[in-house]
Amino acid sequence: MRKIHVIGIGAGDPEQLTLQAVRALRSTDVFFLLDKGEVKSDLTRLRKDMLDAHIPGDSYRVVEARDPERDRGAGGAAYSPAVGDWRSARADIYERLIAQELGEDDTGAFLVWGDPALYDSTLGILEEVQGRGRVAFTYHVIPGISSVSALVARHRTGLNRVARPVQITTGRRLAEGFPEGVDDVVVMLDAHQTFRQYADHDIDIYWGAYIGTPDEILASGPIAEAAPRIERLRAEARERKGWIMDTYLLRRNPGER
Amino acid sequence: MRKIHVIGIGAGDPEQLTLQAVRALRSTDVFFLLDKGEVKSDLTRLRKDMLDAHIPGDSYRVVEARDPERDRGAGGAAYSPAVGDWRSARADIYERLIAQELGEDDTGAFLVWGDPALYDSTLGILEEVQGRGRVAFTYHVIPGISSVSALVARHRTGLNRVARPVQITTGRRLAEGFPEGVDDVVVMLDAHQTFRQYADHDIDIYWGAYIGTPDEILASGPIAEAAPRIERLRAEARERKGWIMDTYLLRRNPGER
Repeated sequence: MRKIHVIGIGAGDPEQLTLQAVRALRSTDVFFLLDKGEVKSDLTRLRKDMLDAHIPGDSYRVVEARDPERDRGAGGAAYSPAVGDWRSARADIYERLIAQELGEDDTGAFLVWGDPALYDSTLGILEEVQGRGRVAFTYHVIPGISSVSALVARHRTGLNRVARPVQITTGRRLAEGFPEGVDDVVVMLDAHQTFRQYADHDIDIYWGAYIGTPDEILASGPIAEAAPRIERLRAEARERKGWIMDTYLLRRNPGER
Repeated sequence: MRKIHVIGIGAGDPEQLTLQAVRALRSTDVFFLLDKGEVKSDLTRLRKDMLDAHIPGDSYRVVEARDPERDRGAGGAAYSPAVGDWRSARADIYERLIAQELGEDDTGAFLVWGDPALYDSTLGILEEVQGRGRVAFTYHVIPGISSVSALVARHRTGLNRVARPVQITTGRRLAEGFPEGVDDVVVMLDAHQTFRQYADHDIDIYWGAYIGTPDEILASGPIAEAAPRIERLRAEARERKGWIMDTYLLRRNPGER
């Protein structure tokens, strides 16, 4: 039976691979690398470097495929259906890759930045492909260091305060309002620097981009002071590299609620 | 200057150490192992096994200390002050350990189960000790695979659903009500199986104990059916081992709100 590893490869620092992940890399015959287009080719290269560094010889094959474009143009309401279509188009690609590129007794792997459990569609897609029942395979998941963990480690702070909750959400959700019932909020996938919306609140921000890579940028402080600084750093970095991946923690003074 | 590593060592599976963590273990002169008493001695042994497995020779020293007892008897309102006293008592111990057991140019390490960023007091305590200014040291944080990541990896599911938030909270908080604005909730530190309170809701539970260890137990399903099963498994395991560490994800049907 075909076997698939879904491997969390950490937030960008190749040293953040776990021993379990390295072992899985070494037992893989075929790596499936899905690319979102030229702007992300840096990320494809980083993954190939990781394979070179950890797998002796050339015992493996890399199959590259192009991710279908996701319709991000639509507004908030249209977000979920667009994601659904995109996921189904992706499932077609994954199904074809598994059926055509993986021999009956081969092991394939998908490399996922961070942790496959956080804002990544690989697990959902594999479940969908398996549900279709046209190609038989087993899969298992190797957890990775998420950009969330890596971010707060670099800032030497925790995610939650003592005995209190933390929420992980998206920029889009944050734009709708500060989440209820929590004062510690991690924001991912925020293309619009939504933190600016809270610049006059009693909030500390811990921000990071390209975390764990040589391009890493960190900034933190009271949001009123830090927000313009982060905006500038972010614009410069984006201009220079052509793409950006950033994450931040907002830590609100509970008296602010 | 004294240097301290705060090392996330993963949820229990020694293979979940990162390469960065292994490197930090190998550059450590003195490991500080804090023990909560006899019931947790399994956990101290597991950490020692990890050192034996990854550090060649006997280039290091282990210093064991007893954690002060935490007053858990008090009700909800008294929780935070009790934690404050306990933290300050712990800071006294950490300060003494760093000052007395670590030479001026030595590197010490605290090994933290899971990820130091989640419901762990080490970072807060080191910040407090540093703030007191009586012993000079630098410290940095090596993120680890949290029990949260390990749990959902074993269940082959994500933490969040597409474009939606996830909250990480405590059993005590969950007892006060299902968190607002989220349908995916991870619960840690729940000594009272608070999930039972939601057994008549349209919720799926993904539960695990001793995740990543040979004693690992997993259970999942619609909560009405799974809750009594988990209760039984949990009671048996606790009886057998004398202690339990478990975590779960509650995934609510959004129609239930």
